[in-house]
Order: sequence, then C-alpha cells, then structure tokens
Amino acid sequence: MAVATGDLLAAARAGDKRAIARVLSIIENDAPGAADILRETYPQAGRALVLGITGPPGGGKSTLVSRLVAAYRERAPRVAVVAVDPSSPFSGGAILGDRIRMQDRFLDEGVFIRSMASRGNMGGLARATARVVGVLDALGTDVVVVETVGVGQEEVEVVRVVDTVALVTVPGLGDDIQAIKAGVLEIADVLVVNKADRPGADETARDLAQMLTLGQPRTSWKPPIVRTVAAKGDGIDELIRAVDRHREWARESGERERRRADAARVEVEALLREALVRRLEQRVGSERVRAAVARVAARAVDPYAAVEELLEGA
Amino acid sequence: MAVATGDLLAAARAGDKRAIARVLSIIENDAPGAADILRETYPQAGRALVLGITGPPGGGKSTLVSRLVAAYRERAPRVAVVAVDPSSPFSGGAILGDRIRMQDRFLDEGVFIRSMASRGNMGGLARATARVVGVLDALGTDVVVVETVGVGQEEVEVVRVVDTVALVTVPGLGDDIQAIKAGVLEIADVLVVNKADRPGADETARDLAQMLTLGQPRTSWKPPIVRTVAAKGDGIDELIRAVDRHREWARESGERERRRADAARVEVEALLREALVRRLEQRVGSERVRAAVARVAARAVDPYAAVEELLEGA
Repeated sequence: MAVATGDLLAAARAGDKRAIARVLSIIENDAPGAADILRETYPQAGRALVLGITGPPGGGKSTLVSRLVAAYRERAPRVAVVAVDPSSPFSGGAILGDRIRMQDRFLDEGVFIRSMASRGNMGGLARATARVVGVLDALGTDVVVVETVGVGQEEVEVVRVVDTVALVTVPGLGDDIQAIKAGVLEIADVLVVNKADRPGADETARDLAQMLTLGQPRTSWKPPIVRTVAAKGDGIDELIRAVDRHREWARESGERERRRADAARVEVEALLREALVRRLEQRVGSERVRAAVARVAARAVDPYAAVEELLEGA
Repeated sequence: MAVATGDLLAAARAGDKRAIARVLSIIENDAPGAADILRETYPQAGRALVLGITGPPGGGKSTLVSRLVAAYRERAPRVAVVAVDPSSPFSGGAILGDRIRMQDRFLDEGVFIRSMASRGNMGGLARATARVVGVLDALGTDVVVVETVGVGQEEVEVVRVVDTVALVTVPGLGDDIQAIKAGVLEIADVLVVNKADRPGADETARDLAQMLTLGQPRTSWKPPIVRTVAAKGDGIDELIRAVDRHREWARESGERERRRADAARVEVEALLREALVRRLEQRVGSERVRAAVARVAARAVDPYAAVEELLEGA
C-alpha cells in the first residue's frame, strides 16, 4: 500500500473527519488507492451496528434519524449517517440540503455524515453504499445509520447491506401505503409509525399488524411495530431497544451471516463481471465491442448474435 | 426456430392477446424459446410510438394513462400499456389491481395491458421492460405506453427505453416536489401538471418553468408544460400533440438514435457480462466461485483478491 493511503487511513481511524471524508471519496470515485483501502479495511469491518431507515417521503425520516443519532451518541463514541438518495440520479438532490443542516446541528465531533446520490454510482448505488458502510465500520465507527428515501427496488438493494431495516410510515398516507405494504414483510425488521400523535395512528398500526399476519413469514422474527413522535423525541428509546433485539436475534439465528453472505456474493459477482468485461475488451479490442453495439442499435443484428460473435473472438 | 415458437409469434402478430401474453411471459422468464423470439423480433421493432409516463404516487397517472389509451385507440388500431412497478420487488404490487380493473374497462380488442414487477427481474427490470416493449413493437403494436410509479433510479433506467418521457406532477405536492425537481430536467421530455383544476396549479407550473430555465439544457428541446385534468379528459389532446412534437424533434435531431444506441449498449453489455460469467463458471467450476464468496463473507479475504484468484484459474 502507498504510504499516502496508509497515513490517510491512520488519520481516519483516529476520527479525523476530513480524512474519513477523503477515504470515502476515494472509494466512491474508485480513485487511485481505492483497491488498497478496500484490501486494508475489509477484514476489519463487521463490528458496527448498521441500521437502515427507509420509507416513503413525508414520513419524517430526517427528524427521526437526528433523534436516533443523538440517542446513539449517548451510548457510543462514534456514530455515522449515510444518507442515500436514489431519487436524485443527477443533481445530488434535496436530501443533501437536509444533511448540510444536520451537519451544522451536530457540531459534535463524534458524528460523521455522508450524502450519497446516484451520480457516479450509476447502476451501483447499493454496492457503493455497502463499501462506504464497510469502510466506516472498519475505521472504528460504532453505529452506522443508513437512511434512504423511498420504497423502490433501489432502496431494497441499498438496505440489503444493513443488519437491521426500520421502515418508517406515518398515519394518513392513504392509498399510497399500498405501495409500501407490498414489499414490507420481506424487507422490514422493525416497523415504525412516526408522527404517532396524529389522527389515524391506531389504524395505521392495526393495518401493519394485519399485513404481518397475512404474509408468509420468512424467518422466526416477527417485526415489532414501534410508535414514535420524532419531533418530540417520543419512542426513540423503544425503537433503539427494538433494533437491539433484532440485532441479537439476527446474530443467534444465523440471519446476520446469511445477509452478509448475500452481500458478499453480490460484490464478488459484480467485481467478477467487471473484470471479465475488461479482459474481453483487452483481448478483442474495445473498438470491436463498440462496433457490435452500433450494429445492434441499428437493428442489423440482435443482441444475442452480437454477443456470440464477440465471444468467439475472445 | 422451433415450429411452436413460430406459430405462437404468428398468432401474436395477428393480435391474439393470449398469444401475445405467452410470448411476453417467455421473454420475461427467459424460458425456452426466449432467444428465438428475441432473434426473430429484434429486427422488426423500432416502429411503435413508445411513450413513458412517470412521476410520484398520487399524481393520477393511472387515470391519465386510461385517457391516453382511449385517445390513442381513436388514432391507431393497436395500443399497449406496460405498467412497471419497481416498488413491488416481491409481491407483484398494488399496480396490478389497478391494471386488472383497467383491463376490465378496456374490453376493446385493440388494447393490450401488461404488468411488470421486479419479481423475477431482480436487478434487471429496465432490461426486461426494454425487451417487452421491443417485442410488442415488433408484433405490430402502434403505441406502447410505459407507466412507472415513482421517480427513483430504477424508473430513470426504465424510462430510458422509451422515446418520449412525460413526467406527471400535481399541485400541492409541497416539499416532496423537490425530489422530483432534482432529476426532472434530465429525464422529462414533457411535463404534465395533472389535476390542474386544483388550487396551486399555476404555482406548480411556474415552479416547473423556473426549474427549466435554471438547468443546463442537455439538448435544443425545451420540455413543454401541459396541464391536464385526467378525470375529466381535459388536456389529453394537447398532451398527445406535445408528445408528437417531441417525437418529431427527436427523430430530426438525432436524439432518438442516441437513445436507442444507449439502450443497445446497455443490453449488449449486460448479455456480455452474463455470458462471460457463465463461461468462467464452466471453466473454473461454480463450486470454486461459491467457495470464494464464502471466504469473502467471512472476511477471510477481500473481494478484489478473491476475484483475482478466480480469474487466474480461468
């Protein structure tokens, strides 16, 4: 490993926020030193509590995350927030503004905040998030909160990197709750009804409980439903206890190892595909790959035939 | 090509809806005959008008799509709707119910409706959609409307397969409109303010117009803002004219070819990666790949080192 990378990692391990930010930028941009950093940090990760917070917009997730971070900081010296915004593929997104305000609030040296948008991670936001979380973990962070906006496929992929997923809903989402419900039983480990002082909280909690009884349980874990009023700080301790219980169950039941094996498989397969394509391009020449794409675009040849031709030359 | 596939394609080309549905299921499930069908149909696609409708939940997209389909059916014999729901990775999703109701409404022989959820298309919903749209096009569909829920990365990938993207907003989305705005300038060709008889429509239209003037224009196309009240059928003709104008511009400016080349590149690269991984597994044995994944999951080795080892054996 280059000396520069070693010094940077040492500073980051000591908790220097600018050093941590630089390490993460190298990883995110796959800049020189990225492979060294991943090699160095990979064996050291796996100790942090990694919690995912997801749910549709308007659920008060940012406020909830702020409260959680404050509460976790009372328990542990180093807490990080990774705010992932798949809805902002190009521009960095609205979440960034929230984060900057949040960073201002936490002048606390023990809190590190990182925003990630899809920019530069096209098609690979989940992988990039997994790496960032893994590096934060390896650098000695005690708790990593991964916050995502929305309940789409991309969010499901992103939360796959965490140990415990909390899905945040609010009373009165109306029909839109259907979209959440569809996948909720499979991805949520803890269900949160935030803004639970609003009318309809009982109904929302009941709806969620009913959905839970309808689904096919994937494991022996029954996701608890926790009511919070993040704006007032209500229910935060209960949420933390629910997360702890899930974490304990996941460790004992082998679920934690299953999720980590799944994440490892995704990462190895992705790296393998990239390496194989690079090798093919070196062998047949990237010019031939480009020419094949152009012929497919013109519908002069179908994609299967084009790929077969390329493979014959490799 | 197998005789059975040929007969099925002939029936599908003649407009037999059950035959069309079977062809699409073969494609979606990558069932036997899929490669034959893609080979046969690929050169015949590229003629249909392919329109994407996207936007956050609650925008009245389903109603708008129903109206659009009715209007397009007055102009063309065969119209299809492909309803894509990335928010339902596991369960098929809420959109399916809407579609079934929609199908009931359109007992019209000239309307074909297809729902797609992420199930079975994990990580590849955009590609599966591109294939389904291409096959519908090749089978003689005049207009294909691709409807997606949400404004996330997955939706951006999905709409990449269409020629024209209409982004649907409504008055009064409040702060949540920020999430749309972030990517809107880059992916929307036509902006729709639906439910435009509600208070705040002027403000929403003004906000969108202002956003358009702020962004870096990617091309010479300036996305028009169309107001609709889909529930009453207002503005549908204007929307269709806006789509036609964009289609004409895209053809003349070369934008259409650029998008199609982009889609071809994505498809060829994906097939290439799959084929290369299959070949590697044949050469080194899938057992060795699994063992490497297990060692990475146990953090005994980092993913880069594991991949290098696998490649050495190939």
